[in-house]
Amino acid sequence: MTIALIVLAAGQGTRMNSDLPKVLHPIAHAPMLAHAMRAGAALDPARTIIVAGHGAEAVGAAATDINPDAQVVIQPEQNGTADAVNQAKAALQGFDGDAIVLYGDTPFVRPETLERMIAARAGADLVVLGFQAADPGRYGRLIAQGEVLERIVEHKDSTDEERAVTLCNSGLIACNSALLFDLIAEVGNDNAAGEFYLTDIVALASARGLRATVVTCDESETLGVNSRTELAAADAVFQARARAEALENGVTLMAPETVYFAHDTIIGRDTVVEPNVVFGPGVTVETGATIRAFSHLEGCHVSRGAIIGPYARLRPGAELAENTRVGNFVEVKNAVVDEGAKINHLSYIGDAHIGAAANIGAGTITCNYDGVAKHHTEIGSRAFIGSNTMLVAPVSVGASAMTASGSVITRDVEADALAIGRAPQQNKLGRAARLMEMLKNKKAKDTV
Amino acid sequence: MTIALIVLAAGQGTRMNSDLPKVLHPIAHAPMLAHAMRAGAALDPARTIIVAGHGAEAVGAAATDINPDAQVVIQPEQNGTADAVNQAKAALQGFDGDAIVLYGDTPFVRPETLERMIAARAGADLVVLGFQAADPGRYGRLIAQGEVLERIVEHKDSTDEERAVTLCNSGLIACNSALLFDLIAEVGNDNAAGEFYLTDIVALASARGLRATVVTCDESETLGVNSRTELAAADAVFQARARAEALENGVTLMAPETVYFAHDTIIGRDTVVEPNVVFGPGVTVETGATIRAFSHLEGCHVSRGAIIGPYARLRPGAELAENTRVGNFVEVKNAVVDEGAKINHLSYIGDAHIGAAANIGAGTITCNYDGVAKHHTEIGSRAFIGSNTMLVAPVSVGASAMTASGSVITRDVEADALAIGRAPQQNKLGRAARLMEMLKNKKAKDTV
Amino acid sequence: MTIALIVLAAGQGTRMNSDLPKVLHPIAHAPMLAHAMRAGAALDPARTIIVAGHGAEAVGAAATDINPDAQVVIQPEQNGTADAVNQAKAALQGFDGDAIVLYGDTPFVRPETLERMIAARAGADLVVLGFQAADPGRYGRLIAQGEVLERIVEHKDSTDEERAVTLCNSGLIACNSALLFDLIAEVGNDNAAGEFYLTDIVALASARGLRATVVTCDESETLGVNSRTELAAADAVFQARARAEALENGVTLMAPETVYFAHDTIIGRDTVVEPNVVFGPGVTVETGATIRAFSHLEGCHVSRGAIIGPYARLRPGAELAENTRVGNFVEVKNAVVDEGAKINHLSYIGDAHIGAAANIGAGTITCNYDGVAKHHTEIGSRAFIGSNTMLVAPVSVGASAMTASGSVITRDVEADALAIGRAPQQNKLGRAARLMEMLKNKKAKDTV
Repeated sequence: MTIALIVLAAGQGTRMNSDLPKVLHPIAHAPMLAHAMRAGAALDPARTIIVAGHGAEAVGAAATDINPDAQVVIQPEQNGTADAVNQAKAALQGFDGDAIVLYGDTPFVRPETLERMIAARAGADLVVLGFQAADPGRYGRLIAQGEVLERIVEHKDSTDEERAVTLCNSGLIACNSALLFDLIAEVGNDNAAGEFYLTDIVALASARGLRATVVTCDESETLGVNSRTELAAADAVFQARARAEALENGVTLMAPETVYFAHDTIIGRDTVVEPNVVFGPGVTVETGATIRAFSHLEGCHVSRGAIIGPYARLRPGAELAENTRVGNFVEVKNAVVDEGAKINHLSYIGDAHIGAAANIGAGTITCNYDGVAKHHTEIGSRAFIGSNTMLVAPVSVGASAMTASGSVITRDVEADALAIGRAPQQNKLGRAARLMEMLKNKKAKDTV
Repeated sequence: MTIALIVLAAGQGTRMNSDLPKVLHPIAHAPMLAHAMRAGAALDPARTIIVAGHGAEAVGAAATDINPDAQVVIQPEQNGTADAVNQAKAALQGFDGDAIVLYGDTPFVRPETLERMIAARAGADLVVLGFQAADPGRYGRLIAQGEVLERIVEHKDSTDEERAVTLCNSGLIACNSALLFDLIAEVGNDNAAGEFYLTDIVALASARGLRATVVTCDESETLGVNSRTELAAADAVFQARARAEALENGVTLMAPETVYFAHDTIIGRDTVVEPNVVFGPGVTVETGATIRAFSHLEGCHVSRGAIIGPYARLRPGAELAENTRVGNFVEVKNAVVDEGAKINHLSYIGDAHIGAAANIGAGTITCNYDGVAKHHTEIGSRAFIGSNTMLVAPVSVGASAMTASGSVITRDVEADALAIGRAPQQNKLGRAARLMEMLKNKKAKDTV
Repeated sequence: MTIALIVLAAGQGTRMNSDLPKVLHPIAHAPMLAHAMRAGAALDPARTIIVAGHGAEAVGAAATDINPDAQVVIQPEQNGTADAVNQAKAALQGFDGDAIVLYGDTPFVRPETLERMIAARAGADLVVLGFQAADPGRYGRLIAQGEVLERIVEHKDSTDEERAVTLCNSGLIACNSALLFDLIAEVGNDNAAGEFYLTDIVALASARGLRATVVTCDESETLGVNSRTELAAADAVFQARARAEALENGVTLMAPETVYFAHDTIIGRDTVVEPNVVFGPGVTVETGATIRAFSHLEGCHVSRGAIIGPYARLRPGAELAENTRVGNFVEVKNAVVDEGAKINHLSYIGDAHIGAAANIGAGTITCNYDGVAKHHTEIGSRAFIGSNTMLVAPVSVGASAMTASGSVITRDVEADALAIGRAPQQNKLGRAARLMEMLKNKKAKDTV
């Protein structure tokens, strides 16, 4: 079956109390919209249409960033869900296949659920996704007879008998694309809000003698986000799933509830993650690594046997080979660190290549920025960089070379050479005592 | 209505197992006493009397620190709540207005609740604050007929019928000040503990034909603290409220339960707070800022568009203008950072002014302390401070000036000038290899 | 009573999905096995036998690391618990006393519970530890008449009536050692799994007319670990206990759920622990200290009045005397810091002794490693180490001496002397402006 996704993403989200369009608020470092689009992308759709409205420019940019083939259409006014879907009509003119309607603020629907909806199309003209609600509250109810969905009743229009139904409407619909727009053309707005509701197409289809049916999913998949409190709750749901999955995959999380995962974090078996670790987007950790407490990783790759942290910050482009060490208060950015190299304390390594088994002393800084551009630092294998060495890039230190602690290295250092740039030490006897006396007297005078 | 607050703060808090007087244990970085006093202060009281006992000196100092007009009276012995209130009698001699009795260990009563108590005085001589207890347990019960409070029954003295009552006594009372002390004068101590109970004044008032009534509040407002476990629970209640309020106000908290707020934290709309952030007292963050993971802020102000952290520590007096950046492992104290300036890595900036668009290199330190006094560092706008520059204060660097990395700056640098203090680099060929050989031999010898 | 512990630790733990043997997975920084062995050690056993199987070498090494007197025996094949216990037979040949069977993956049994089991041996030949299960699920049921335990019924073999029993089997057994092996010799493997079950000895004992009885404990003591999810849950149980105990002992935990304790953390009364603190193994904090947010401590001792953090990392061998200060982004390892000394910012102090009231400036590094060996740094009392001083060990700085900021100290500094190693500052007028112009032109050219 050829599939077109229609993702509704036009809402303002007034209750978010934000200048950012609702669907761009992130869960686990990816916009809600990306979560919904990714679920749909698992169906390998031929077409992806995003219906934008509020903040359309930003939403459109995000959508094409997530999927460059996505097509953005605009809903000029918020006239209801049927009106929103209808904006995709021109774009899907002549499209021969099924349309599936998703929501940019319903991020957790599973790909398998969408696949079941598509499969159910074999026996029905229209497939609606429903769920058994623990607390049906104000959800619309799905009124079905056996497998046949008769109609969707809004809560406010429902009888007591209908309110007793706990099968509720998620809003997701699958239908032949041409039929979808044909049905929508008949939807009216004769209701309190004066809006065109997509749910009305079920009754319209029934009236035509077409068959509608329900596919059900777990209520958690239909979680919608309308406020920051709900956004935080959705993030918590994501985190709980990600932690459970990591544990299942053989990762040790010493205190799972203190580890924050991004939407795309990958961690290998027998890796240990200590308490209080934050993963930003784009992190892959191989098996058998150790991520110690208070570490922060984003856009990086950590290999087997590496030990990171505590208090290590790996930024995008940090590529750590096997058995490397990145210790406390160390920042690594856009740098390849070869096997067995160590950067243990208080250092900044950016735009660099650190050779195998090199030892980077405490307080080392790659001075990669000259105020205008960034430059590269190359450290040879087994090199020993003394504490507090400034490496003024572009610069290279050869294999097995050393730098004396406190040196500023502005010229390349040959392999096996010792580079030193250091003023000689002078000890001035008694001077500290006299100086301290003087400072104290001065202060006494100042404060008289 | 003219109001006098009487805040009972004399208890030892044996179950706290502490040398610190109970009411000085902090919740969200403010002593419990401050929370209670602040609620009362919203009534704009003419007088504030603190009844201290255990640790009276420390309690008194804290009280006048919170409110310089507060008057501290001493309860010499712990003879019950009526005796405690009675210590305020002399101080309120001739005071014409209402007294409201609060408790230093009941920090969460809302100002609106106190206002309702005062309003209820229009129809009653005595107003008692009650609450519907989920689990009435050993609380005293309020025995009322309609709006009329007849008496307060201690749990141990109650009949089965009385124990079925779930309206419980919070201990807070509002009453004409003169009447209050008049009633207290009749309270006896003919009970098991030999103490004078404030609750007895209700029955005494009824006996005089005076009218007592009940104002109710949510049980959470009456939460009392008697142990560190309860203190931690109270702090958790505060945090839950503060997080909910921030979300409501349009702040994004990616993982709300990992953000610790102080009693007075203010955060603007559309600011994003990442996981694991701690706010100490005195922090204001404007709208549209980003506080990244593992940051610690106290006594500082962060403006719109600023990005802080991860691992940034802002200490008292840090004033960050719009679009500033304070990055990882950076400490800023008593320093004004102008618009667009960046301090991205591993630096200590204290007692300083950083001009607009200045760039502070990694490892920069303002050497502000000479062993006796602190001195100021002035950095001009657009200045470029090279990595690992030591700025020996007092010192200034002019606008658009540069310092070479690794320099110690002891004299002022003119605008547009380059300051450099650096020993020339020498490369000694083959020396590293020989040195390493020697060290290894030496160690081999040492360990033979 | 002379006691022999038999600790079963042979299981692979397939559901752990790990190369590490199950009993070596840590809870609160100690292997599960250590928790179980420690509970048993409280009985002061004459003998401790560890039955290893999967990963026997690693398990054996860990066991003797925990208790050098432990004796490791091997169960060649996983043929059931009776077979496992039977591997200890040879080792306990001629042992005259009681054997108590523990499990390496049941870490939380309390010493007092084991003591009650031993005490119960006075009235019974065989003592089984049971618990009232909230959800008996698939546990084996203890079928008892009054004090007499008749038999243990596996869930799958139980009648409906037996399943209604909520007294369940923990697996722990106490019995005369010779009798234990005698009974085991009769256990058969005529069951679905073809394994020898230790539980069968109860029925065998009853058949001989011996008396078996049950000692009960709280269900939480019998918590077993079979997956990483259960491991994380067990760690959470440990943490909850440790936090409650600390609060009870008069420690303030501002946000208890954010503090991670090790199995052996000791914290004194009136010490304040801020949010987000991680304790590794071997930490003792005296009364009245302050551990600020985001600190990480392992193998260290912190004395009264010391203030640590935020962002302080204390590593093994850090010994902090009274009223010391270790501030942000500071690492201390194998170093004694005397009374009142301060290391406030961005420093690495390793293999050192810091004298009383010394002040260590920001960015100070003890250069303790020459690429081959570690060396010692000695700082005298009241010394003032200027910011960014490199102390190239072995080296000493005398009492009340000073070092100028940015100096590399390679030779000893006399008491009261000022050591300085610093290139003179030169200001090159207009040079920064010209340099920046040149860099910008160059970049413009580069990017044409």
